[in-house]
Amino acid sequence: MQNFVFENPTKIIFGKGQIPKIGKETARFGRKALLVYGMSSILKNGIYDQVTDSLKKAGVEFVDFPGVKSNPVLSHVNKGIELARKENVDVILAVGGGSVIDAAKSISAGVKANHDVWDFFTFSKPITGALPVLTVVTISASASEMNAGAVVTKEDGCQKYCIVSPLIQPKVSILDPTVLFSLSPEYSAFSAVDVITHMLEGYFNNTAPASPLQDRLVEALMRTVMESTDIIMKEPDNYDARANMMWSAILGFNGLTTSGMGQVQMPAHMIEHSLSAIYNIAHGAGLSIVLPAWMSYTLDTKTERLAKFAREIFQVKGRGSKQVAEKGIACLKLWFESIGSPVSLKAAKIPESDIDTIAKNAFALSQVWFYEGYSKEVITKILMNAR
Amino acid sequence: MQNFVFENPTKIIFGKGQIPKIGKETARFGRKALLVYGMSSILKNGIYDQVTDSLKKAGVEFVDFPGVKSNPVLSHVNKGIELARKENVDVILAVGGGSVIDAAKSISAGVKANHDVWDFFTFSKPITGALPVLTVVTISASASEMNAGAVVTKEDGCQKYCIVSPLIQPKVSILDPTVLFSLSPEYSAFSAVDVITHMLEGYFNNTAPASPLQDRLVEALMRTVMESTDIIMKEPDNYDARANMMWSAILGFNGLTTSGMGQVQMPAHMIEHSLSAIYNIAHGAGLSIVLPAWMSYTLDTKTERLAKFAREIFQVKGRGSKQVAEKGIACLKLWFESIGSPVSLKAAKIPESDIDTIAKNAFALSQVWFYEGYSKEVITKILMNAR
Repeated sequence: MQNFVFENPTKIIFGKGQIPKIGKETARFGRKALLVYGMSSILKNGIYDQVTDSLKKAGVEFVDFPGVKSNPVLSHVNKGIELARKENVDVILAVGGGSVIDAAKSISAGVKANHDVWDFFTFSKPITGALPVLTVVTISASASEMNAGAVVTKEDGCQKYCIVSPLIQPKVSILDPTVLFSLSPEYSAFSAVDVITHMLEGYFNNTAPASPLQDRLVEALMRTVMESTDIIMKEPDNYDARANMMWSAILGFNGLTTSGMGQVQMPAHMIEHSLSAIYNIAHGAGLSIVLPAWMSYTLDTKTERLAKFAREIFQVKGRGSKQVAEKGIACLKLWFESIGSPVSLKAAKIPESDIDTIAKNAFALSQVWFYEGYSKEVITKILMNAR
Repeated sequence: MQNFVFENPTKIIFGKGQIPKIGKETARFGRKALLVYGMSSILKNGIYDQVTDSLKKAGVEFVDFPGVKSNPVLSHVNKGIELARKENVDVILAVGGGSVIDAAKSISAGVKANHDVWDFFTFSKPITGALPVLTVVTISASASEMNAGAVVTKEDGCQKYCIVSPLIQPKVSILDPTVLFSLSPEYSAFSAVDVITHMLEGYFNNTAPASPLQDRLVEALMRTVMESTDIIMKEPDNYDARANMMWSAILGFNGLTTSGMGQVQMPAHMIEHSLSAIYNIAHGAGLSIVLPAWMSYTLDTKTERLAKFAREIFQVKGRGSKQVAEKGIACLKLWFESIGSPVSLKAAKIPESDIDTIAKNAFALSQVWFYEGYSKEVITKILMNAR
């Protein structure tokens, strides 16, 4: 185990009927909020009313800032920054999934900056201040509600880049699993893929020797995510399955599973960012295409880890680690397909002839993230595994 | 899964060579610290020098308050409160294990109170303020370095009671696993027992239906604690084993494993408190006596949970849940004995004729903690299982 710092101060309020607590929590951080959300779904399902009633009761003014899209874009974030400044809000409240929360975090940092917010995403400038962010979660996958990261796409150049700072980490997040009852099977599946990929990137791509504890935590969470998702596919309103999934999503990417594991790389995310930036496909759908392809690419270099994964998660038997590893990758693909998430570019209607363009885009991000070993050629090889 | 709030803001700085960071961290909270520690061990092993050099470099004044004993006592806590007031310190720095940290937490709350600090322990008064507490951990078991609890014994009446408040939770804790290299086999064993008991009390005694996720987290941690302790018994300076144990100790009792599990009772701790209060035996030694006895007492009411534990942790095979459960309890006792922790009152030289006195003492605490179902007769039955 390598040295680490673990500090995760987000207050999580979890369970049925908890959303009306958001007003009082928001009031601890300010009197006027920018209310960031996506499309009309929260207006239809009553969450908007629950949140705004609670804000009113707590005496918190708010300004609506709707319109965040899946894979949030820079131009919209800039509009949010402008509105937050104009209205002089002192807190940002995100009501939505990872996209909405990431947009809110980016706005919170941008408001305090005297330069283009994109400078944070290219790591040309450090984040030195941010408005407090609170969240009410409506899609559970990114763990953005309890971590310090945010991802935004700059439309010009299709750059899907990220920022990381404790200053943008939510102060309070409210998670009500019943909110997920109406989440479509597709997005329920994509959420599971995202959560699993967060954990597996850490499991496969770190600079520390394997730790039995951290391995077991990942395996415990992964089993729970798969088991819960299988239930959710049949019973979308199974409270315990949604709750287990919602809490696993957080624990899988809030720093817990990677503590002591040194530097962690996320190559599947890096390559997927190009897919969702260029084709605007769901992040989870892109990950179920890229992750197994990346795993196959590392078959000879990470054989034992892949075999351990196969044995622990899919109970693959056998002595030859390479064969076991291959079976594990096949099992993962089968499971992704069984829940309805694509495992090839073809299944997502992305032509093989685009691989060069995608690889070029992903290589640019590998340079920003300082990922060695991911030349355009390597990325092309990985994508060829995903045809 | 039941509704829950999870908020754990302690900053953990973990790893080799991290102790010299304590000065800078302490300076964030004040200019003058009460330095709480135990006996002379930290003077001998160089930790005292590392800490005080770091404080001096960071410009933090400090006042020594040594002498905390294993099972810290109220009279000593009161002296600490007096000294903290007299010296007008603005931060409390604990350098030690659970006893030292618990004493420091109690002092931090007591300084701000205009009444007897014991009123907090009898729950007659709520904690409404406390000085910030920081810790440098030298024995890893209680998880007090990352939770909101503290336990102190009032000598008059042998009352070993506790307080719980976010106000006393450490702001920063530094954990260097190399510090544990010199921990005796006895105390290494007692630490493991303590960590395991924290988790199993939650696993067996909560008001929520079992959660697959929370069960798996406990099982993952428990396997790691047992595996690490087996290594430590042979190789006391095995860094990874000490590190896995140190991090597991925290994760087993920082709120993670009990989130969503409703109200959790700790009857083994309740009864053990009487053993260490009356006989001043090590807390872990008391727990390895009481926990299996309590498990046997619940054999008919918690059969399936006990059987699950036996199957998951000790791979006990068989169909009859009661037999499986019994074997699981026997395996746990054997394992406690194998690491050198007693599993009977006799082994701790506590005469059977004292059972009545112990039960009376424990029953008094059950009243303070509002534990129904633990009459003096029931406690006597449990203790009879531990003869």
